[in-house]
Amino acid sequence: MDDLEEFRRRGYAAIDWIIEYRRRLEELPVRPAVDPGWVRSRLDRRLAEHPQPFETLLGDLDRTIVPASTHWQHPAFFGYFPANAGVHSLLGDLLSGGLGTQGMMWSTSPAMTELEQVLLDGFAAALGLDPGFTFAAGGGGVIQDSASSAVLAVLLAALHRTSDGAWRTSGVDGRERVYVSTETHSAVAKAVRVAGLGERALRIIDVDQQTRAMSPAALEAALRADVEAGFRPVLVCATVGTTGVGAVDPVRPIARAGRAHRAWVHVDAAWAGVAAICPEHRALLDGVESADSISTNAHKWLLTAFDASLLWVRDAAALPAALTITPEYLRNEASDAGTVVDYRDWQVPLGRRFRALKLWAVLNGVGLEGMRAHIRGHVAMAEQLAGWARDDPRFALAAPPSLALVCLRVVTGAGPVADDAATRAVLEAVNASGAALLTHATTGDRYLIRVAIGGVATEQRHVVKLWEALQAAATTVLAATPPTAS
Amino acid sequence: MDDLEEFRRRGYAAIDWIIEYRRRLEELPVRPAVDPGWVRSRLDRRLAEHPQPFETLLGDLDRTIVPASTHWQHPAFFGYFPANAGVHSLLGDLLSGGLGTQGMMWSTSPAMTELEQVLLDGFAAALGLDPGFTFAAGGGGVIQDSASSAVLAVLLAALHRTSDGAWRTSGVDGRERVYVSTETHSAVAKAVRVAGLGERALRIIDVDQQTRAMSPAALEAALRADVEAGFRPVLVCATVGTTGVGAVDPVRPIARAGRAHRAWVHVDAAWAGVAAICPEHRALLDGVESADSISTNAHKWLLTAFDASLLWVRDAAALPAALTITPEYLRNEASDAGTVVDYRDWQVPLGRRFRALKLWAVLNGVGLEGMRAHIRGHVAMAEQLAGWARDDPRFALAAPPSLALVCLRVVTGAGPVADDAATRAVLEAVNASGAALLTHATTGDRYLIRVAIGGVATEQRHVVKLWEALQAAATTVLAATPPTAS
Repeated sequence: MDDLEEFRRRGYAAIDWIIEYRRRLEELPVRPAVDPGWVRSRLDRRLAEHPQPFETLLGDLDRTIVPASTHWQHPAFFGYFPANAGVHSLLGDLLSGGLGTQGMMWSTSPAMTELEQVLLDGFAAALGLDPGFTFAAGGGGVIQDSASSAVLAVLLAALHRTSDGAWRTSGVDGRERVYVSTETHSAVAKAVRVAGLGERALRIIDVDQQTRAMSPAALEAALRADVEAGFRPVLVCATVGTTGVGAVDPVRPIARAGRAHRAWVHVDAAWAGVAAICPEHRALLDGVESADSISTNAHKWLLTAFDASLLWVRDAAALPAALTITPEYLRNEASDAGTVVDYRDWQVPLGRRFRALKLWAVLNGVGLEGMRAHIRGHVAMAEQLAGWARDDPRFALAAPPSLALVCLRVVTGAGPVADDAATRAVLEAVNASGAALLTHATTGDRYLIRVAIGGVATEQRHVVKLWEALQAAATTVLAATPPTAS
Repeated sequence: MDDLEEFRRRGYAAIDWIIEYRRRLEELPVRPAVDPGWVRSRLDRRLAEHPQPFETLLGDLDRTIVPASTHWQHPAFFGYFPANAGVHSLLGDLLSGGLGTQGMMWSTSPAMTELEQVLLDGFAAALGLDPGFTFAAGGGGVIQDSASSAVLAVLLAALHRTSDGAWRTSGVDGRERVYVSTETHSAVAKAVRVAGLGERALRIIDVDQQTRAMSPAALEAALRADVEAGFRPVLVCATVGTTGVGAVDPVRPIARAGRAHRAWVHVDAAWAGVAAICPEHRALLDGVESADSISTNAHKWLLTAFDASLLWVRDAAALPAALTITPEYLRNEASDAGTVVDYRDWQVPLGRRFRALKLWAVLNGVGLEGMRAHIRGHVAMAEQLAGWARDDPRFALAAPPSLALVCLRVVTGAGPVADDAATRAVLEAVNASGAALLTHATTGDRYLIRVAIGGVATEQRHVVKLWEALQAAATTVLAATPPTAS
């Protein structure tokens, strides 16, 4: 029933709308000033009964959606980690919808499956991963929606493997233990909960107070104590580039400790991992060759729109062994022969979209050289910002800069409580101005401002402007701070 | 670093490519004739170092991807259930990428959150769901990627609720039981495995041999026996429109039995549920008002490209109670005040795409009236096909037609074994011709051909052509079948 000529007209208009939106982003406040319920109050509660002109939709976008959106593609968005909806990836995603294939199995779309295999093997090489993670060598990669889903999938494979297969039939037994640090992303705790292990299964290992990296000695001690107490180490998660301050866990000794106790070792490099496409950042992934799996998100810092989290495992049979279920209606010759990859067995959902196309389109649009330039530009901006902060007595670096993440603290001279309050006040002042969006973290009990540089449109001038806004806010806040220790 | 004028040129070209692809689909074989490895052998193993013209990508699509794709949007695709990548939904998806917002929390994109709330409330009304499933009444809806993820999410909520909250801390305890029928989708078994319950937790209830619907009496008996034996009923899953033959479980007595034993009652209406937007099909959802949750997929039969599975729950607090984890860096004023919906707590992954836009774009493009016409057209085609099969002695209906799903069996006169072999041979002959794609199922131990009508481009003439292909294949196969009982 689709009218394809009308689609052409609307499609061109959608492309044009996106271009105008991206162009005027800079004039918009990064964060909307709307109260809860504002959008709902402006939308018709009854769904449209009849077709409407496309201009009605675009008008609603302009008048209601855009004014109430946090603009993740704004060049002055420095919150969380970046969300890289580069325009080339939009084209791949659009073509994926156009094809409209469903890649649950090789047989339901051979091209989708094999392009994904080729791209994941290719990115493994580009990142300098051990060849053991490629299909060519018995491992392999898969695109998940998110790093959360990736770590859930490997936790399930780990439960299967460490129970010698009993898990599929009998479920968990209460003796499983999973190891993270105080800085590990909450996705692991959520996966532990989802997998039925309960919070009691989570062992939170201390970090070095300076680097915020997991202590391999503390991990080793916890593993040994648990094994002696009759618990079963299932998964150890090391992080390359923590969410808080971008800390890098020492993967090699962590992997050694985990493997010594038969645990699955996963490396969560969701944000930082993609930087390894630059040879000068390849050392980030030192030790990953000893791990069982690693994930990194193309949708954070590799110009690819959400969702595209790349996951590699050393054993291509591990995820299917844990996850496969084959009802009669999905049986087919290719799967029965075991000669193909059926990606449904590498993930929790059955259905899957042709996500590889968006990554392929980014390569087509900018090549690996463009991806490297993107990352290098942001790292250089971060180094510059860190330098300015070092030279300004009103600021201190709350942690060593990590790639394009700079963590700042305001220095009042009146002690840590006053510093934290001032830091929070500066963050709130910058955010309230709409000129930039910053988010915070805590390390130990100290409050800090995270400046995560990495937007598709972020240029040096935006970082300069941010620094001016930070300075101005600090001046105001410090003027209002009592001079004595709090 | 995006060149927006180049994006305009490429964007228009992508739209044009999709139109050409959709136009020539009919000339392509539905299923590709490629061997495993063909695509990989044609692609460069090294990722592109430098940018390439967009025409290179489109050429690779034409020469390698299209010839190796199963064409789910082909008008003669009658396999599995349809995948409705209607072009209006592509526009919404494109705009979603253009905005590039990340909707994990209300504060990270108020518009994304509230549009999703409004649309889910609106669809609840359009489907005739009990108002208790709307936000207005303390329930609410959410868009998941798939029905698999939806049932996993409700299973987790059920584990939390039926354990009085102990599950989050202690995990599962081995006494949980989950109830499905022999016809229930394997997604529930997979969710049971993912949640750590093991296969032993799955109780498979018998179905009526004629209708293939779950027997409420058998369910009630199983529930009672389990409770007496010390097990804890956690989830009962009723299906409206099973994958095999489109059977409809009697939801009301199933829900009554489940609730009597404190189990969560979920209704999986992944394919069939959307038909309830037509008043004449609203009776499909009889009894759902007694359930705790219901899901139906916009991406199967509602003109919306994968992924968009709609899930409603009666208690808006249920999913967050089970799934929330709030690290410091995600804390914000709106969430702390409890006045907003943070959809990250309604799903397993943290990140989320603006999926509501694609559903909104479909409404904009065709309205509810267009959606109804889409469904009614396919149902009429199915009735016609079923009539032809009834009138042809070479065929029998293997089950009563269900909406737009017709299940056929070839009749040899030589007994069930010969009938099954002939049915399989007819399916293989039609598929091998490339003229249509059909998939199979079994009920009891009998093999049957499923004809799932519902493609975006499927018209009556495609069903006529399919029927001619089925007849021709049956003539050939029957001529080769020995006339005596096997």
